[in-house]
Amino acid sequence: MFTRLRTPKGTRDHSPEELEHYRYIENKLREIFELWGYQEVRSPTIEFVEALSTGVGPELVDSTFKFQDFDGKILALRAEMTAPVARIVTTRMVTVPEPIRLFYVSNVFRYSQFYVERGREFWQAGVELIGCNTSDADGEILSLLISSLGKLGLKEVRVDVGHASLLRDLLKATGLDEKKKGILQSLLAYRDETRLEKFMDQNIFASKLKEVFLQFSCCRKLDEVSSISIGSPKYGKAGDHLRNLLEVQDVLADCGVEDSVFFDFSLTRRIEYYTGMVFEASVPNLGLPLGGGGRYNDFIERFGKLRLPATGFALEVERCIQALKAQGFQIPEKRKTKVLVSSKFRNMAIEAANVLRDAGVVVLIDVTKDDEKKIRDYAKLAGIGYVVFVDSSLKKPAMVYDVRSDTSENVTIGAFLQQIGGQL
Amino acid sequence: MFTRLRTPKGTRDHSPEELEHYRYIENKLREIFELWGYQEVRSPTIEFVEALSTGVGPELVDSTFKFQDFDGKILALRAEMTAPVARIVTTRMVTVPEPIRLFYVSNVFRYSQFYVERGREFWQAGVELIGCNTSDADGEILSLLISSLGKLGLKEVRVDVGHASLLRDLLKATGLDEKKKGILQSLLAYRDETRLEKFMDQNIFASKLKEVFLQFSCCRKLDEVSSISIGSPKYGKAGDHLRNLLEVQDVLADCGVEDSVFFDFSLTRRIEYYTGMVFEASVPNLGLPLGGGGRYNDFIERFGKLRLPATGFALEVERCIQALKAQGFQIPEKRKTKVLVSSKFRNMAIEAANVLRDAGVVVLIDVTKDDEKKIRDYAKLAGIGYVVFVDSSLKKPAMVYDVRSDTSENVTIGAFLQQIGGQL
Repeated sequence: MFTRLRTPKGTRDHSPEELEHYRYIENKLREIFELWGYQEVRSPTIEFVEALSTGVGPELVDSTFKFQDFDGKILALRAEMTAPVARIVTTRMVTVPEPIRLFYVSNVFRYSQFYVERGREFWQAGVELIGCNTSDADGEILSLLISSLGKLGLKEVRVDVGHASLLRDLLKATGLDEKKKGILQSLLAYRDETRLEKFMDQNIFASKLKEVFLQFSCCRKLDEVSSISIGSPKYGKAGDHLRNLLEVQDVLADCGVEDSVFFDFSLTRRIEYYTGMVFEASVPNLGLPLGGGGRYNDFIERFGKLRLPATGFALEVERCIQALKAQGFQIPEKRKTKVLVSSKFRNMAIEAANVLRDAGVVVLIDVTKDDEKKIRDYAKLAGIGYVVFVDSSLKKPAMVYDVRSDTSENVTIGAFLQQIGGQL
Repeated sequence: MFTRLRTPKGTRDHSPEELEHYRYIENKLREIFELWGYQEVRSPTIEFVEALSTGVGPELVDSTFKFQDFDGKILALRAEMTAPVARIVTTRMVTVPEPIRLFYVSNVFRYSQFYVERGREFWQAGVELIGCNTSDADGEILSLLISSLGKLGLKEVRVDVGHASLLRDLLKATGLDEKKKGILQSLLAYRDETRLEKFMDQNIFASKLKEVFLQFSCCRKLDEVSSISIGSPKYGKAGDHLRNLLEVQDVLADCGVEDSVFFDFSLTRRIEYYTGMVFEASVPNLGLPLGGGGRYNDFIERFGKLRLPATGFALEVERCIQALKAQGFQIPEKRKTKVLVSSKFRNMAIEAANVLRDAGVVVLIDVTKDDEKKIRDYAKLAGIGYVVFVDSSLKKPAMVYDVRSDTSENVTIGAFLQQIGGQL
């Protein structure tokens, strides 16, 4: 096929039907986020590479579209929205009191081959709770995530929670080199306690540290971490992090959503800026997470002087649609009955259209000047409900053709409007 | 200021207040377009340069952001939406019966320095009526444009209409070289009949052609072109184009919008694909047009084999906002009363928040654990309407602090909900 007819790898068009599903998710999430006091912001699609690559780590920077502006500066397409929001908060919200609650519904872009299959332009809806370092803030973000997915219509939502700094501090305490740390992390991810234990024995772990690793690795539910005692001050701030997780668990219990929350000690997200709780949301039988997020306390200060601890999440719109479809959920269609109005008397067709549209009916006016037979055929193929052939006055009955039943009757516009009232 | 804190020239962030204005325009236009039977599509932000540069002319191609993909292909950011829609119709809508009515609400991008001031990323809402070459179709597009701007709340909307092929055919009939044609066009644009006449005398125009040029140049209203008779078959299809304009005028009269429509013989849009009627919408005291469009009958076939005559327009969202503000129109704010809920008993704060949110109230839960004084101060600065301090049970009265009046009273959540019912 000619290049001019294709779209680049990992990008695609959205037909009216597909876009309606997108709008359902976007509007529903917007509604929930607003009800929880979050306000929407929007950032430019194109930014300076310096803004987008601050603190996100090399993997994401490598996956960012970059190109030159007319003045030689390097521009980039945003790969995620947390950096733009951090920039907005730093530059435009210095007088806004904290905590600041913001959300976005935005497309993001990934350059590399790796993203071709999952999409190189995709839409995210996300929230950021900025300027508050409490476990209550973490809990709000998790319960908003669970509540949002529930309100979309998703069932069996599961959120896996880990802690970026807890894992980092304990990995550091092992004294292993980077390569061995990598092996250890993958053993934790596979949750293979036998091989994990063997690895730790081979690498001469202190018995207490070995016990801590095994205990964390065995925890499946967030409340189970309460049985773990870290004790030793040698493990960085691991004790504080553990306490944070337990407090978050308390908030979730108060919200009544603790059943949806699991613990995954190995969970890390591919972005560098996380410092606290990290998490991913999923549903059974969908290979990829619906979204995720976490706490990032050191990130915003990299933009300016403001030290603003923050926490947030992003959901991927396309995956939410896939998950709903996989669960057999019928995304409500707002598509209404369509009426095609035709008349030899154009001013009467326009007048009838005005009357019907004022009542909320979707009306197409025939602009083809085709004969009645062709107009009926068009209506059948175009998903039109009724064709109204208007006479020389709206007072005279119009001939209304019901496409589905393939029958016609003569009624006034007023009577017709009453008939279809229930289908609006 | 550090580069990481800035956005590229001609791009900007949208604060919650600004974005709310955008959403008002976007949603209102979406509503109207749907009521007229148009369906929304979305195309990728990134496309192959071959798709975006087909038939739009060198000026727009020069103003398009271009960059290389990982496989060496040249990508570009869309500079307008008609080419992507033509591509969608050609590839994805071959079985959809014509006419096809589509719309979009989309951001577009311009590379060059020239666009820095007016914006290099801006949002457009536009419609395309595809597969019909009647004056009725042209009339629908113009009356939809006028109706849309009226529904937004704009007053004194004016649409200037010209005809791309009429001007082209008559310019061709002069036999002038390109440079002199350019001079002639600018004389027409300035509407300086004295200099125009002098120029035509100097360049030895046939007396009939001179008369036609002068007549078109003098027309201010679309219905005035009815007095012009072209006669000579030497002027290409000028006679047909004139007839098309008169028929469009008839449709507009039937729609009752002819008072808003003016004639501008010199009007050309900066895009090459127009073949028929072209137009621009404006309001007094705003320097730039709100949008415009026209008929493009040869454009879509450049994508595939389908010869699909089409007509459409695009409105610029930002300019509609500017125009509304300039006219003193208050864009309705959907922002509702915000309530901040705080409690020493977290489960009670959450329960109260659930009750209020279920009733549609925007509720923020205090996650700071600050003292009462600090919470009140936050509420004042954050635009909160009421702070509800919940006791150990929802049955007990909560202390409700009214931020605006700076008073408190003890009421149950139920009673409070009734009180603020009117503010939702």
